[in-house]
Amino acid sequence: MSTISSIKETPKPTDTSANESEWPTFTGAPADEAKDHFIHRNGLEFAGTHLLIDFWGAENLTDLDTMETAFRACVEQCGATLLHIHMHHFTPNGGISGVAVLAESHISVHTWPERGYAAFDIFMCGDAQPEKAVPILKEAFRPTRVTVGEQLRGLTQSATEE
Amino acid sequence: MSTISSIKETPKPTDTSANESEWPTFTGAPADEAKDHFIHRNGLEFAGTHLLIDFWGAENLTDLDTMETAFRACVEQCGATLLHIHMHHFTPNGGISGVAVLAESHISVHTWPERGYAAFDIFMCGDAQPEKAVPILKEAFRPTRVTVGEQLRGLTQSATEE
Repeated sequence: MSTISSIKETPKPTDTSANESEWPTFTGAPADEAKDHFIHRNGLEFAGTHLLIDFWGAENLTDLDTMETAFRACVEQCGATLLHIHMHHFTPNGGISGVAVLAESHISVHTWPERGYAAFDIFMCGDAQPEKAVPILKEAFRPTRVTVGEQLRGLTQSATEE
Repeated sequence: MSTISSIKETPKPTDTSANESEWPTFTGAPADEAKDHFIHRNGLEFAGTHLLIDFWGAENLTDLDTMETAFRACVEQCGATLLHIHMHHFTPNGGISGVAVLAESHISVHTWPERGYAAFDIFMCGDAQPEKAVPILKEAFRPTRVTVGEQLRGLTQSATEE
């Protein structure tokens, strides 16, 4: 049991085992339909856009609050819907692993503060715009060097409609 | 509040808001040191290996238990350490979004059961072996077509040691 791993939904620090209880029954409640329609763009049909973003020379890579605030701002600016957020703080270097599960897929980060390095990935399907996360993350972590790779996930054959 | 989103650590269904409480204080406890040393291989130095895996014609894409079991088997077989697991079940299609936060980074999945499509990503640093996850996922979801892309994340200049 760690006091430095937490889920925002679950402030109960004594209940952090990953081995408890059954998954809840799937009730078919209509509230959280996946925004999962495949995208048609430039004659291609695909499931979503997956950005792999590497920051070097970055700051604030041990700051959970900055990370959480940045994640939430990304979700909002990209037009996505947050379902779950989890941040883990490592020792002794203070590095962070964070994930946000979205109705449109996910955001993740892993930081190596001693290297000034952070690896983000932002996977969004539907109408969300993952590229809008990049300036938010730059503002929060002020990297001196950035690489952004884009993968189109779930690429099918050329779509019959655009 | 949804009854179909859950965290294994937190069976309390009435406590699933993503807006509660502060992150816990970083205490510097020694139990969960990040296994984050950069990798040296073939003259390259990098943070970790990120596999992007697409399954088509896959089965069991609405089955949370199969997904959770597969994730845990992947973590074990890859030599990784599970810190947190979360599965979300969407309506009405039964699609799954799942994430596992590891000491060595993360595993994620998003499924589109109506397309027989699943998008996995497996990011592992340190000594973990992410490629060992692929046969486990194939066995669990029996895809008819698989693509695996590999990204070396956090690639620095050529290492001085191999």
